Amino acid sequence: MSINLTILGCHSASPRVNAFPTSQYLEINNRHFLIDCGEGTQRQMRKYKVGFSKINHIFISHLHGDHFYGLVGLLSTYGILSREKELHIYGPKGIKEVTLLQLKVSQSHAKYPMVFHELSSKKSELIFEDDKVSVSTIPLNHRVYTNGYLFTEKEKPLKLHIDNINHYEEIDRADFNNIKAGRDITLLSGEIVPNSELTLPPKKPLSFAFCSDTCYKPDIAPIIKDVDLLYHEATFLEDRKDLAKKTKHSTAKEAAEIAKEANVGQLIVGHYSGRYKDISLFKDEAQKIFKNSDVAEVGKVFSIDS
Amino acid sequence: MSINLTILGCHSASPRVNAFPTSQYLEINNRHFLIDCGEGTQRQMRKYKVGFSKINHIFISHLHGDHFYGLVGLLSTYGILSREKELHIYGPKGIKEVTLLQLKVSQSHAKYPMVFHELSSKKSELIFEDDKVSVSTIPLNHRVYTNGYLFTEKEKPLKLHIDNINHYEEIDRADFNNIKAGRDITLLSGEIVPNSELTLPPKKPLSFAFCSDTCYKPDIAPIIKDVDLLYHEATFLEDRKDLAKKTKHSTAKEAAEIAKEANVGQLIVGHYSGRYKDISLFKDEAQKIFKNSDVAEVGKVFSIDS
Repeated sequence: MSINLTILGCHSASPRVNAFPTSQYLEINNRHFLIDCGEGTQRQMRKYKVGFSKINHIFISHLHGDHFYGLVGLLSTYGILSREKELHIYGPKGIKEVTLLQLKVSQSHAKYPMVFHELSSKKSELIFEDDKVSVSTIPLNHRVYTNGYLFTEKEKPLKLHIDNINHYEEIDRADFNNIKAGRDITLLSGEIVPNSELTLPPKKPLSFAFCSDTCYKPDIAPIIKDVDLLYHEATFLEDRKDLAKKTKHSTAKEAAEIAKEANVGQLIVGHYSGRYKDISLFKDEAQKIFKNSDVAEVGKVFSIDS
Repeated sequence: MSINLTILGCHSASPRVNAFPTSQYLEINNRHFLIDCGEGTQRQMRKYKVGFSKINHIFISHLHGDHFYGLVGLLSTYGILSREKELHIYGPKGIKEVTLLQLKVSQSHAKYPMVFHELSSKKSELIFEDDKVSVSTIPLNHRVYTNGYLFTEKEKPLKLHIDNINHYEEIDRADFNNIKAGRDITLLSGEIVPNSELTLPPKKPLSFAFCSDTCYKPDIAPIIKDVDLLYHEATFLEDRKDLAKKTKHSTAKEAAEIAKEANVGQLIVGHYSGRYKDISLFKDEAQKIFKNSDVAEVGKVFSIDS
């Protein structure tokens, strides 16, 4: 029914006093996900009142330090907090070995089950699904194996049109599940009441795509087509397009071109290089290509309702 | 000539919004050391203006996460900063494997040499020495293998007593090195001028002992005897002495007893459990046993001149 995306960190490379590496907290259709976990993420979670116990799934895009060095600390803290629930961790192959070795040497005797889902496919694949949400990978192109993640609400059930239902005395609560399932109702008289009269269209399922880190990769557009909210990295502006190319990052203009091509609802850019002091320049550059562009800022919450 | 100890973090367990895990920056006799490196230490270094490039030696007490989870991020940042100088890392056996694996999976191609000094002895040993400072281990007793570190300025040379020297016309600059080396001077007349007349006593070498984490361990007192400054952990107050014993930590009273027994100049306690909101209680408890006690606070600098 809604998406709330909280930016916990949105800068590249090393943590600085007011620049935190990538991490986002996503609430979508009553599911709660953590995406990337740079150093200091657990402190940012506390600062922005993210409920630790709500998170059961953590998605790591790639194994550069500014996207996962905070993971082991968070996993240890879950142990200190006496977590018992399973925690699922999705990330590139290798994430399990390095994480478990750290937990072993630090003798963090976490008692909760950690389930690692190591990724190595270069094609988009469905990696999580329940009755509320599905999550698929978005293959990106960076210096190391990297995935973005596409979060999509499940199709929602039809809503009962109570006013219309009340016109038919013999339709009662026992019929509601059939109506919500899309069936017509046959009255005793033999009259058929079409489902469309008894229902309202369901709310549109929402979707969010997280794309970081990557160079300009237009072939992701079909995967993220029409998403309501797109986060796409923009480490540089066009003034350093050479550096973006060399380091396999994107410029704000390139992120906006992806947003335009994919016809998304709203674009957020982030992962700024430390060389830029004025973040609003990223917004300006993106908006020239794609009007509904905004910039990630630490603590900012982006909300969408359907 | 002086000690400046900057507290970068002084709380136990997980980082919280205003509670940072253990890390200290020590300047002693123009040497610059980092001691322990919990998650977020590099951000604290920036906040408190610690010059990254000055540090060539990092000492890790033990491999609990709140003492070393920030190390890999700092080492990566040195790579980003194009460090070329050797960096020496001292810590328990195991620190090398876990650190190098993290750097490998995150493809942090640091070009500077990292020299790991893995410790496993249960006796105090000299682990670093140059012309200014020596560093020895202080074997502690915690749930995992742990060392404290004793930093001692080298004996300083005698100072020339210029006023007295000037009484002797035939003593000139060519004699100064002999005088500073403690030699008497024989004049042409055959008269011997004793060195004590030509020199002033050197400044007293200063020393600092870092003891964390550990249960009450009175047998460290001879090792840290007469140090000018002692940091000793106090995770609990006496009200939770049971918990201190169980988790192999100390109370403020116990830390103060060590300080008293070792006849130190000043005691600082830290590594507070999150259950205590009022840190001044640690000072009160310690001062009842050892008057010159103080509490570590983030950003606080303790300075001593000889």
